[in-house]
Amino acid sequence: MMTPVWQEEILEDLSAAKHAWNEVRKLPAARKNKFLKTAAHELEKNQAAILTANRQDLEAARKENLNSAMLDRLTLNSARIQAMAGGVRVVAGLADPVGRLQETWKRPNGLKISKVSVPIGVILIIYESRPNVTVECAALCFKSGNAAILRGGRESFHTNQALMQVLKQALKKEKLPEAAMTLVSTTDREAVDFLLKRDGDIHLVIPRGGETLIRKVVELSRIPVIKHYQGICHVYVDRKANFKKAEAIVFNAKVQRPGVCNAMETLLVHEKAAAKFLPVIGRKLQEAGCEIRADKSAWRHLKSVPGVRRAVPEDFGHEFLEKILAVKVVPGLQAAMDHIQTYGSAHTDAIVTEDKRAAQTFKDEVDSSSVMVNASTRFADGFEYGFGAEIGISTDKIHARGPMGLEGLTSYKYIVEGKGQIRV
Amino acid sequence: MMTPVWQEEILEDLSAAKHAWNEVRKLPAARKNKFLKTAAHELEKNQAAILTANRQDLEAARKENLNSAMLDRLTLNSARIQAMAGGVRVVAGLADPVGRLQETWKRPNGLKISKVSVPIGVILIIYESRPNVTVECAALCFKSGNAAILRGGRESFHTNQALMQVLKQALKKEKLPEAAMTLVSTTDREAVDFLLKRDGDIHLVIPRGGETLIRKVVELSRIPVIKHYQGICHVYVDRKANFKKAEAIVFNAKVQRPGVCNAMETLLVHEKAAAKFLPVIGRKLQEAGCEIRADKSAWRHLKSVPGVRRAVPEDFGHEFLEKILAVKVVPGLQAAMDHIQTYGSAHTDAIVTEDKRAAQTFKDEVDSSSVMVNASTRFADGFEYGFGAEIGISTDKIHARGPMGLEGLTSYKYIVEGKGQIRV
Repeated sequence: MMTPVWQEEILEDLSAAKHAWNEVRKLPAARKNKFLKTAAHELEKNQAAILTANRQDLEAARKENLNSAMLDRLTLNSARIQAMAGGVRVVAGLADPVGRLQETWKRPNGLKISKVSVPIGVILIIYESRPNVTVECAALCFKSGNAAILRGGRESFHTNQALMQVLKQALKKEKLPEAAMTLVSTTDREAVDFLLKRDGDIHLVIPRGGETLIRKVVELSRIPVIKHYQGICHVYVDRKANFKKAEAIVFNAKVQRPGVCNAMETLLVHEKAAAKFLPVIGRKLQEAGCEIRADKSAWRHLKSVPGVRRAVPEDFGHEFLEKILAVKVVPGLQAAMDHIQTYGSAHTDAIVTEDKRAAQTFKDEVDSSSVMVNASTRFADGFEYGFGAEIGISTDKIHARGPMGLEGLTSYKYIVEGKGQIRV
Repeated sequence: MMTPVWQEEILEDLSAAKHAWNEVRKLPAARKNKFLKTAAHELEKNQAAILTANRQDLEAARKENLNSAMLDRLTLNSARIQAMAGGVRVVAGLADPVGRLQETWKRPNGLKISKVSVPIGVILIIYESRPNVTVECAALCFKSGNAAILRGGRESFHTNQALMQVLKQALKKEKLPEAAMTLVSTTDREAVDFLLKRDGDIHLVIPRGGETLIRKVVELSRIPVIKHYQGICHVYVDRKANFKKAEAIVFNAKVQRPGVCNAMETLLVHEKAAAKFLPVIGRKLQEAGCEIRADKSAWRHLKSVPGVRRAVPEDFGHEFLEKILAVKVVPGLQAAMDHIQTYGSAHTDAIVTEDKRAAQTFKDEVDSSSVMVNASTRFADGFEYGFGAEIGISTDKIHARGPMGLEGLTSYKYIVEGKGQIRV
């Protein structure tokens, strides 16, 4: 079999990225921020070229009969480009995550040990159709001193190319290495498999997209992967919940944006709260176009609400990503936590209660990356946590967990300073 | 093909470990420490049974003609069992790494966000012949609230079984779930491949052993792996080094224990220091039985030392793990750092200098997990850093880097507390 042309190109890209990283990792904050501001300006200035490329992708997508949600995600316009540029300016304004002294201590033998944050290296990001991911990820990786290898979706290929061209112009203007960010120049699927084996060249992979994509990446990768497969988020309404708060939180968690990973998928209600709470929230959700799937004991309290269905076992632990909600009545807090442990995905789970002891037990014992008390699951988000930016959400147990901002894109090193000490 | 018997056993073990973890992760520090003290006591009390099992392994090993270094690693005696028990008591005395409030802040909407350390989950440790690793890893995983699945070497199978039996007795005595630590009950090689695919049951893999073992684990694993392949450590003796310190450090880094990962493999010397420094250190190393492999320019200063050989290119970037040292003369600090970047393994690299600017540049720019100034590379070690224990050393760029103690065995979660906030 002949080596495909793209393979050689990728190897060149990876080698160039490594060298670029060796410069980028040492850049002072001021130079990184200056570049980001230039990039934002260039994005605005080059709107016409970006929109032309986007129209090319949109035409092809329409020919392939992509559905309207996908077309919407793919579509750029002036406002969306402005928003991208705005996002890049926000990243410019964030604190530099590199070179931060995390801890320092002295040893009895006089050695001084310091733990200092450093960039990770070359980061591969694999994502699907939204072209703004290209700009976001490039900006976040750059600010954190990393080189980015971006592999976007086939559908947005021309848009991504146009965006990358603008970013590279900005790098050139600022006399920075253009290989600090690279868009993989082929849409060949085998290129991903090839990249995932290059653990000598790439330090971290972040897949952003559907579960199928992420499972494939984990299956094939020899490089560490940070990810979440699913967001199966629960809200548990306790016996001692304030029902006004519970109503607002449950409604918000399900309805405000049902297609995202921090939306609620299952509602758990204490049996002593069910008779009062379920009919009210049931009607409110139904009026908002939400389909309710109730287990046997929830059904008793919901059957008066039009359109409520009986749940099948598979409805629990299922990520609907639309206006569908599984509802279950539980005998108490422990049963709620057991359900979450069994069916949850350790993404985000919430309790609504005024009982401090119940809240404390829930906080201590629920092993999710975000645990909420009297707040909507929808807050599990880098912006809402105040990180200013988000590269993704992790449900992994190592490195970054939960919403992941610039800090999640750094590692650390130990610096040991002595006066000639040797080990005895 | 029939399913092998061990496969069912492993699935049972994993299920039991998951349930045990669900208890262990919530244990208060006092109960964990009490168990560890009981375990230490039981190890001492059951010496006879452990030594009987060890003799069984040693006999088999002699029949298979294992070399003397391997036999030594495998051998237990009363002093070594005492040392194991002592190590477990040290772990009992360390601070609980779980439940530590790492950060807390308030958002403008009133949400209070806290970042709290939590155990990782079920941890698989794959290791080779030294049976003390069984006890060390079980103790460290337990103290950090994790369940441990241990897969030791075939040669130490009976010893490991005897040790695990003692640990399980101690768990039973303390009314703790016995599945909190499990020794894989088969030595079948395919069992490792099977375990590495169980990413739903196991949260982290730590391979401890030779590079071949570790590469195999990374190749096959769908579970995150923390590891280092090699320790190719450098010492750079700067033009402005204090030669007395340099002599002590270089000698210590190479000779004190050459077979470990933080021993020096390559010595780099500034060209202005070479004439004075190299003949002295060369003779000293030669007298200690060290073989020197000098590049062309180092050779000029070392040829008077008996037995010095000319280096071949492959000697640089090579992990000798014995009394062999590659030596190179460099034109200056930048060349030294470039060499380290090209040939190093990002484990531990040292500079010897009295020049503060050179030291600062080296600290800032060398991207190794431990960077030493005027200290021996041999200090890169969890005990020497004051962690009290070490589960391994990582040269990965995510999660734990460098020497990895109890903190490296934890993750974190975000706790978000509100008063009914919803997302707008």
